[in-house]
Amino acid sequence: MALALDAAAQDLLFREARTANTFTDEPVTDEQIQDIYDLVKYGPTSMNVTPLRVVLVRTPEARERLVGHLGDGNKAKTAAAPLTAILAIDTEFHEHLPTLFPHFPAARDMWAPEDFRIPHGTFNAALQVGYFIIGIRAAGLAAGPMTGYDADAINKEFFGDGKHRVLAVVNIGKPGADAWFPRSPRLAYEQVVTTV
Amino acid sequence: MALALDAAAQDLLFREARTANTFTDEPVTDEQIQDIYDLVKYGPTSMNVTPLRVVLVRTPEARERLVGHLGDGNKAKTAAAPLTAILAIDTEFHEHLPTLFPHFPAARDMWAPEDFRIPHGTFNAALQVGYFIIGIRAAGLAAGPMTGYDADAINKEFFGDGKHRVLAVVNIGKPGADAWFPRSPRLAYEQVVTTV
Repeated sequence: MALALDAAAQDLLFREARTANTFTDEPVTDEQIQDIYDLVKYGPTSMNVTPLRVVLVRTPEARERLVGHLGDGNKAKTAAAPLTAILAIDTEFHEHLPTLFPHFPAARDMWAPEDFRIPHGTFNAALQVGYFIIGIRAAGLAAGPMTGYDADAINKEFFGDGKHRVLAVVNIGKPGADAWFPRSPRLAYEQVVTTV
Repeated sequence: MALALDAAAQDLLFREARTANTFTDEPVTDEQIQDIYDLVKYGPTSMNVTPLRVVLVRTPEARERLVGHLGDGNKAKTAAAPLTAILAIDTEFHEHLPTLFPHFPAARDMWAPEDFRIPHGTFNAALQVGYFIIGIRAAGLAAGPMTGYDADAINKEFFGDGKHRVLAVVNIGKPGADAWFPRSPRLAYEQVVTTV
C-alpha cells in the first residue's frame, strides 16, 4: 500500500469507519460541525458552485417533525441520535456565483437554465455530501447517512421556500453498542476499473 | 481545530489539495489506482449499491478519442496529463445487489424500476466520485476533475452498451508548473448551516 495518507488516517476515514446505527449520549457541538465545514468546504465542485446546505436538527420538536417522515427502519435510531443533519441542495445556488467564481462574470447566467442547473447542481451537491461524510469521520465521529425517507414531505416540512431539496439525512455521534452490521462485500478492482 | 484527523492529512486531502491543470511527466501506475480503489471502495452508499465504474485512458489513441469530446478549455491539459479517468455510472448496478447486499434478497427488485434506480443510483455514484477524488489526493497525487464535455458523445465513444453514463472526467498526476488558479472564495458557515 503506497498511499501518501498515513495508515491511521486511512482507517479513520475509510477502512475502520462504518455507517453507525447506534450512538452514545455524548453531545455533538456546533463547534464540531463548524470544524467539519471549515475542512470540507474546500472539496472541489464544478466552477466552485458549492450548492450543499445543512440543517442541524437539535430541538426535540424539530427531531419529531423529521422522524415522522423517515422510513420505519430509520425512525428509532434517528430519534436517539445526538445530532442529525439534513443535507440539501439550494437550487438557487447560482445566485452566489458572482461571489464564488468572481473571475468569470458569465457564470451566473450560464447556470441559470433549470434543465442544466438542477441535474448538474445536484451532482455537485452529492459530491459535497460525500465530502461531508468524510468530514464527520475526520472529526472522530461516526456518520449514519440515510436515504430512506419521504423527500417531498421533508422538503415541505423544513424548506417552505420550495427552493431546497433534501439529498440525505445523516445521524452524527460517537458510535454506541453494536453500532454497525458486518461489512458488506465490495466489487473487485477488475469489476470496476478497465483500461483503454 | 479539534478534528481527530491529523493536520498533515487535512492539508493533503482538503486544505492544500487543489484542482490541478498542469502535471509533471511522472507516470501514474495501475498499482496506484488499485491502491486508491482499495481505500475508497469502503465509502458508504445506499444499500451498498456502489454504482461507480472507472475507465483509465492510457493509450494515445484512446486519449485522442476522449479529448475530441471535451470542452475547449479542457482539451490541452487532458492531452498532456499522465493519466485520465472517465468516471461513470453502470446503470445496471442493481444486478450486483445479490452479491453486494446479500442479507436483503429483495434489494435487486427494489432498485429495478428505472425512475427510482437512475436518479438514486446517480446520487450514489456521485458520492463515490467524491470519495475517488479524495482517494487520488490520499495517494499523494493531484486530481483535475472536469464536467465540461459532450456527455452523449463520450457515452457513445466509450460505452457502446448504452448502460454506462459519464459523470466526470478526472486528470491524475503530480502537479506541474503553475498547476492551479488562486483559491476561489467559499461560503461562510452561517450561509450554509442553520440549526432548528
